[in-house]
Amino acid sequence: MKHPGWWKMLTVAMCMAFVACLQAQELQGHVSVILLGATGDLAKKYLWQGLFQLYLDEVGKGYSFSFHGAALTSTKQGQEFITKVLESLSCPEDMAPGRCAQLRGQFQQLSQYHRLRTSEDYMALSKDIEAQLEHEGLREAGRVFYFSVPPFAYADIARSINSSCRPGPGAWLRVVLEKPFGHDRLSAQQLATELGSFFREEEMYRVDHYLGKQAVAQILPFRDQNRKALDGLWNRHHVERVEIIMKETVDAEGRTSFYEEYGVIRDVLQNHLTEVLTLVAMELPDNVSSPEAVLQRKLQAFRALRGLQKDSAVLGQYQAYSEQVRREQQKPASFHSLTPTFAGILVHVDNLRWEGVPFFLMSGKALDERVGYVRILFRNQAYCAQNEKRWVADQSPCLPRQIVFYIGHGELGSPAVLVSRNLFRPALPSESWQEVEGRPGLHLFGRPLSDYYAYSPVREQDAYSVLISHIFHGRKDSFITTENLLASWVFWTPLLDSLAHEVPRLYPGGAESGHLLDFEFSGTQLRFSRPQLEQLVPGPGSAPKPSDFQVLRAKYRESPLISAWPDELIAQLAADIEAAAVWAVQRSGEFHLALSGGSSPVPLLQQLATRHYGLPWAHTHLWLVDERCVPLRDPESNFQGLQAHLLQHVRVPHYNVHPMPVHLHQRLCAEEDRGAQMYASEISALVADSSFDLVLLGMGTDGHTASLFPQSPAGLEGTQPVVLTRSPSKPHQRMSLSLPLINRARKVAVLVMGRLKREITMLVSRVGHEPKKWPISGVLPSSGQLVWYMDYEAFLG
Amino acid sequence: MKHPGWWKMLTVAMCMAFVACLQAQELQGHVSVILLGATGDLAKKYLWQGLFQLYLDEVGKGYSFSFHGAALTSTKQGQEFITKVLESLSCPEDMAPGRCAQLRGQFQQLSQYHRLRTSEDYMALSKDIEAQLEHEGLREAGRVFYFSVPPFAYADIARSINSSCRPGPGAWLRVVLEKPFGHDRLSAQQLATELGSFFREEEMYRVDHYLGKQAVAQILPFRDQNRKALDGLWNRHHVERVEIIMKETVDAEGRTSFYEEYGVIRDVLQNHLTEVLTLVAMELPDNVSSPEAVLQRKLQAFRALRGLQKDSAVLGQYQAYSEQVRREQQKPASFHSLTPTFAGILVHVDNLRWEGVPFFLMSGKALDERVGYVRILFRNQAYCAQNEKRWVADQSPCLPRQIVFYIGHGELGSPAVLVSRNLFRPALPSESWQEVEGRPGLHLFGRPLSDYYAYSPVREQDAYSVLISHIFHGRKDSFITTENLLASWVFWTPLLDSLAHEVPRLYPGGAESGHLLDFEFSGTQLRFSRPQLEQLVPGPGSAPKPSDFQVLRAKYRESPLISAWPDELIAQLAADIEAAAVWAVQRSGEFHLALSGGSSPVPLLQQLATRHYGLPWAHTHLWLVDERCVPLRDPESNFQGLQAHLLQHVRVPHYNVHPMPVHLHQRLCAEEDRGAQMYASEISALVADSSFDLVLLGMGTDGHTASLFPQSPAGLEGTQPVVLTRSPSKPHQRMSLSLPLINRARKVAVLVMGRLKREITMLVSRVGHEPKKWPISGVLPSSGQLVWYMDYEAFLG
Repeated sequence: MKHPGWWKMLTVAMCMAFVACLQAQELQGHVSVILLGATGDLAKKYLWQGLFQLYLDEVGKGYSFSFHGAALTSTKQGQEFITKVLESLSCPEDMAPGRCAQLRGQFQQLSQYHRLRTSEDYMALSKDIEAQLEHEGLREAGRVFYFSVPPFAYADIARSINSSCRPGPGAWLRVVLEKPFGHDRLSAQQLATELGSFFREEEMYRVDHYLGKQAVAQILPFRDQNRKALDGLWNRHHVERVEIIMKETVDAEGRTSFYEEYGVIRDVLQNHLTEVLTLVAMELPDNVSSPEAVLQRKLQAFRALRGLQKDSAVLGQYQAYSEQVRREQQKPASFHSLTPTFAGILVHVDNLRWEGVPFFLMSGKALDERVGYVRILFRNQAYCAQNEKRWVADQSPCLPRQIVFYIGHGELGSPAVLVSRNLFRPALPSESWQEVEGRPGLHLFGRPLSDYYAYSPVREQDAYSVLISHIFHGRKDSFITTENLLASWVFWTPLLDSLAHEVPRLYPGGAESGHLLDFEFSGTQLRFSRPQLEQLVPGPGSAPKPSDFQVLRAKYRESPLISAWPDELIAQLAADIEAAAVWAVQRSGEFHLALSGGSSPVPLLQQLATRHYGLPWAHTHLWLVDERCVPLRDPESNFQGLQAHLLQHVRVPHYNVHPMPVHLHQRLCAEEDRGAQMYASEISALVADSSFDLVLLGMGTDGHTASLFPQSPAGLEGTQPVVLTRSPSKPHQRMSLSLPLINRARKVAVLVMGRLKREITMLVSRVGHEPKKWPISGVLPSSGQLVWYMDYEAFLG
Repeated sequence: MKHPGWWKMLTVAMCMAFVACLQAQELQGHVSVILLGATGDLAKKYLWQGLFQLYLDEVGKGYSFSFHGAALTSTKQGQEFITKVLESLSCPEDMAPGRCAQLRGQFQQLSQYHRLRTSEDYMALSKDIEAQLEHEGLREAGRVFYFSVPPFAYADIARSINSSCRPGPGAWLRVVLEKPFGHDRLSAQQLATELGSFFREEEMYRVDHYLGKQAVAQILPFRDQNRKALDGLWNRHHVERVEIIMKETVDAEGRTSFYEEYGVIRDVLQNHLTEVLTLVAMELPDNVSSPEAVLQRKLQAFRALRGLQKDSAVLGQYQAYSEQVRREQQKPASFHSLTPTFAGILVHVDNLRWEGVPFFLMSGKALDERVGYVRILFRNQAYCAQNEKRWVADQSPCLPRQIVFYIGHGELGSPAVLVSRNLFRPALPSESWQEVEGRPGLHLFGRPLSDYYAYSPVREQDAYSVLISHIFHGRKDSFITTENLLASWVFWTPLLDSLAHEVPRLYPGGAESGHLLDFEFSGTQLRFSRPQLEQLVPGPGSAPKPSDFQVLRAKYRESPLISAWPDELIAQLAADIEAAAVWAVQRSGEFHLALSGGSSPVPLLQQLATRHYGLPWAHTHLWLVDERCVPLRDPESNFQGLQAHLLQHVRVPHYNVHPMPVHLHQRLCAEEDRGAQMYASEISALVADSSFDLVLLGMGTDGHTASLFPQSPAGLEGTQPVVLTRSPSKPHQRMSLSLPLINRARKVAVLVMGRLKREITMLVSRVGHEPKKWPISGVLPSSGQLVWYMDYEAFLG
C-alpha cells in the first residue's frame, strides 16, 4: 500500500457515491465549467487533466457537472480535438483500469465543445446551460470560466461573459485568469481596472501556478504547525539568508516572441518567486486559512520590502538567445537582444524581523539543472569543541542548519520539505506528507539527505489539479488578488525601468557556464563574483574607466586642486579627512568637522561610515555648515542625510552631534527664536577660537556655497558667525555658517562633482574675490588651508 | 636539500668562525647567560637546548659566551645534572655528526653550574664573570638572567641581581621572566611594582612562549605583507568569526597543585590566547617591526575589548580532575574542585573594525585532540548559480573562505598558514615558509587541504629557541611589557572574580565528551549547546541560587509587584519594556520611553543595549525623567549614563533622543532660559496627549522619586509638566518631570533594588497618598498601569 491516504479517500468517495449520490446532487446543485482556449497547449497539457481530476475528486459529493470546452475553432475541429484529448486522460496510479475507463466515459459524456466568438455565442451557451438545468431539474450552483487565452482577448471575453453568460440569481460566477497580468505597474493597473468593470474582485481567480505547487502550498501550514519551534528562529537573529530559486535547463527557443517582450524578471520573479518571498517573509496570521488575513499580511510584507536599485540585480543572457530571436522573428544580423534570461536579485525586508537578512531571488534559462526551492539557512553561532570528524548530524550545532521547501525536480526529483536534524523534528500532516526513503549518496545543499528530516507528498499532485480544486472550493488564498498583483508590480517596475538598457552578461549555458553566473553582495550592492574577462558580443561602446586615469594634482584659484574619477576622488577626500581627524585628536583631543548638505557628500559619508576604521569618532564633533529650515527628520533636512548615511553607522556621542537649531518652539527659523545666535554661541563655547578643524563645502551652479547665495547678502561679511539666509530654490529659508566663520577654519575642502558643475567651475576659475556675485570666491581661510576636490566631469567636462 | 636556507646560514656562520672569530669577539664583547632554575623541568626540556641553539646560531658572529646554570641544589649535584643534560643536546638534522659533537663540546666547556642562594652568592658569581673577562681580555657586552623559578622566588633573586650582580657600565642587563605573572590584576600589579623597583622596563623580558610559535609570530608579518588583499577583508563587513583555540589531550595529573590555583583561564587564555587575539584584532601599525608601535596598537586593542560578563563564558572540568586533586593534595573524599579545565569565551571588540564579530577563545585539557590554531572565517555573501557538485575550489565564492594560522600539532602536525584558494594567493617570505606538500585525504576546517594555499616553515623551530634568540637580539616585540600584562589582567580579572563560585560542567574527556562541550552564543550570551542532563558529581553546597526561587508576583500599595533576585528582576523588567515597545510601535508607530537617572537603571540599560534585539530602537524616543544641572558630558549627568550604557550600543536616531535642556546659553538651569518650559513643549509636540508609553522611576531612601523631593514642593502638583527642583544632595539643582505628567503615562515602572532600600520600602508600603512627605506615594497613573519591580533585598531585606 503505497498511498494509504489516497486509497482511503477514494473508498469513502465511492461509498458516498453509491449511498448519497442522487440525493446530494439535489442538495448542492450543478456546476458548469467553461474552458476558454480549450484547444490550446496549456489546456491540452494540464487543464483538461485538472478538470478530470476535479470530477474524480468530487463526483458523488453532491454536485453535478458539465464541462464546456470553448475556442474560436470550428465546432467540428474543436470537438475532434477534445475527443482526442479526453481519451488520453489518466487516472491515479492505484485506480483499477475498469473503474478508470468507466469514470473517463462519464466525464466524456459530460464534456462538449462550443465555438465562442461573439456575444451571441455566449448568450447561446448560457441558454444551453439553462435548458439543460431545466431539463434535468437541477438547481444552478455556479459557473467557472477558465481563461486560457492570450491577454489581449481578455476584455472582449470578459464583456461577453458579463453581459450574456452570467449564471442565474443565487449561483456564483468564477473567472480564472492566467498570467501575464500586465507588463508593468501601469499596464497591470489598466488591465485590472478593465476586468474590474466586468467582474467583482471575489469573482476573479488569478492563477500563479506556483501557489499550487505542493511544497509552496506547504509553507504557511508548516510555519503554522511548527510555530513553537520556529518562533525563536524565524528572524534576523537566526536566519543567515533566504534563497528563492527557480532554475531551468530549457531555453526560450520557439517562445522568443513572448520572451523577448517579458524576460526572466517578468516571467518568473515578479510572480512566482515574489509570491514565495511573501509567504516566507510575512508575519504569520493567527489563522493561516483565512484568505483575508493572509492577504493583509502579504500586503504588509510588500510594504516592508526595500526598494530595488539598479545594483540590486545581476542579469545574464544565454549566448544562443539573440540568434534564436533573429531567426524566429526575422531580425537583421546586427540585432542583439538586451532581454535577460537570467537574473539574480538581492531583496531586503526592512522590518524588525528581517532587517539585514539577504533574500536571494534567482531564476534563469539554459542553466545546469532544473530545480526549484526555497532555502532558509540559519546562522552558525556555535563553536564545536570536537574535531569535525566526530560531529554527529542530529547533535552538532556546527553542521549547517536549514529548512528547505523543495519545489520539485532537481536531484531529489519530487517536492519535499527538508529540516536539518540538528534543528528540530518538524510536524507535517501525516495524511498528506510522509518521510522520504533513504537515498544513499544523495547530497543536497552541502549535506547528505540523511542529515535531514525529509518529507514528500503522499500523493504527488500537479499544480493545476490542485488549483482547479481550490477554485471549485472557492479557496481564494491560492490566487492573486488585484491588490497583491499591483503591490508586486509597484515593487518590480522601478527596477525593470532602471534595467531597461542594461547589457546582460552572456553565458554559454548548461554546465559550461561554470562560475560565470555566481554573484555576491557587498552592502546592498549585488555583482557577479567573477569579473567578466571579455564580453563575447560587445555591448554598446563604453566610456573610459576610472583606472585609466591617475589622480591629478594641480592648482585652482591658487589653491591645491585634487582631481580624479568620482570613486578615487571620494576615497582621497575621506583619507584626507581621516588624517586631519587623527592629527587633530592627537593635538587637542577633539576633531571639529563641519559638513555641508546636498547630494555630493553622500558617497563621502558612506565611505567614512564603512571604510575608515581609524577615524576617532568618539572624539569627533559634527557640525552642520548649513541647514534647510525644515524639521530635522524631514527628508529635505541636511541633518537627516547625515543621520541616514553616517550617524546610524558610527558611534559619535550624542552630545558631539550639533544639528542646527532650525526648529525651536515648534516653528522654523523664526528670527525671534535666535537659533543662529544659539548655534554661534555653541560653536564659540566648544570650538577653540571658533576655528573648525575641517569645513567641507560644495559649490552650486550659481556659485553659492554653504547656504550663502549671490542674491542674499547675509553672511558674506560682518560679525555674525551664523546667519539666516534665503535660497532661490525651495525650501527658501536656510541657516548657514558665515563666510568669516568658515574662513577661520584650519582646513576648508570644497567638493565639486558632476558634469553640471562644469560651467561654474570654469567661470569661478577666472573670477577674483567677488563673494557678492559668487559667494564661493569668498572662501579663503585666513590662516588655514583651502583644497579643491573636483571630479573629472566637473573639472574637465 | 631539504633546508637550503638553514644550510646557507650555517655555511656563512662557519666561514665567519674561521675568518673573523677572534677579531669579532673583541668587537662585540662577551655575553654571560645565567639560567636560574637550571635543574628544573623547563630548563631540562627546552631552555638548555635553546641556549645551545643560540650558541650554534651566534658562534663566530662577534660575541663570546659563557653559560651559567644556577639553582639551590648543591654544586656537585647541580654540576652532574647539567653535565647529563648537556650531553643530550641535539643539533639540527642536517648537521654532520662530527661537527655537532665538536660544537656541543665547546658549549659544554663554556657552561658551568653555580649554587645561588644568598646575595653573597650572586656577588661571587659577578666576581667570577669579571675575573674571567679580565683574564681573557674581553669587554662585557651584557648579562642575561633567565628566571625559570617559581614566582615566589622572584623578589629575592631580583633584589640580589640588582644589588650584587649587575654588569659593569656600558653593558646591558636582561632578565627573562616566566609566567605566571600574578594571579589577578592586583597581584600582577604588585609583582610588577616589585620587579620595577629592581629593573628598568627595558631590562625585563616576560616570556609568553606562544609569541615564539612560528605561526603566531607570522600573524603580523602576514597582515603586513598582504595588506593590499586584506585591506578590504579584515573587518566586520567580511569576517564572520574568529576562533582562537588551544586544545590539549593531556590532563593536569601531576600538576594539580599548580593547576588548582590557576585553572584554564589563567593558564592559557589570559596570556597565550589573549596575545593572539590582540595580534589579530589590532590596527596594523605602519611599521610592524617597531615594538613601540606594535605595543601602542595592542594597548589600543585592549581598550576596545568589551567587558566580559559572567555569561560570556562556559566552563568545564574533566571528570577525573577532582579525584586527582584529592589524591595529589590529600584532600578529603568530600572535596570537589571548582577549577575549570575547559573554558569557552565569547569576546567582542567594540570598535568600527570588529563591532559585532564574535571572537571565540577556547582551551581545555583532556580533549579529543591536541591542536592550536587561529581561524578567521569570512562571510559567505554569494549565491552560486551552479549545482554544488560543480563548484571549483579556487573559483567558487560559495566554498568557505578562511585564513588559518595553524599553531601546531593536530592532523597537519606542523605549524602552517592556510589561505582558501578562492580568497587570494598570499605572500609569505619564501626563505622561511614553503608550500606544504599534498596530503590526499586530509581535511581541515571542512575542506580538503588542496583547497588551501598552505605554507609551513622551511625549518621548524622550537618556541624557546626562537625567544632566546630574540632576547639575545633585544627584540622586545616578542615579549610582554608591563603595560600589556596589566591591560590583559584588567580585561580578565572581573570575569575571573564573577566565575569564582561557578560550578563547571563535568566532561568525561577525550572523544567521549561528544557534543557536551559545544557552545554557542545568542546576543552576547554564551551557553553550552546541549542542556546538561545531570551533573555527574554534585557541586559543593552553595548559597541558594536565583533559580531556586520563582519570580514572585504580589501586590504593593495595591499595584502589581514583581520581586526576584537582581538578575531575574532586570531581565523581567527589560522583557516587559520590550513588550510595551513592540505594542506601542504596532499601535502608533512610536514608543516614548522616559528613563530615570541613578545607578539602579545601569544594569537595565546594559540589558536593553545588548540583549533585546526585538526592541524597535529606530521608532523609540528616549526622554529623561530627571536631570542634574550639570553639562551633559559631565560624569554626574544622568544623560551621560544613558549615553555610556545604552546609546552607544543601539541605533536610536539622533532626533529621537531628548536630553533635558539643563545647559542653555552656557549656564545651568537658569530660570530665565526657560529650559523646563522648552522640554515641556517638546513633550507636548511629540508625545500624543503628553502620555508617555512607559516611565521608569526609582525610589530614594527618603521617598523621593524622579527629582521630586520631600523638602521641595515643586512638581508635586500644578500644571507645570516639567519643573526645576532642589535636591538635598549635590548637585542640588535638578530638572524633573512633574507628578501630574508622570501620572499621565500609560505605564509606570518603579525599580527598587538593594538592601539600603529596605526601610523606605516597608515604610512606603504603609503610607497613604502623601506626596509632600513621600513623593513616591503620589505616583498613581490616572488611567495607566503602575508596576513595582523590587529585588529580594529591597523587598524582603
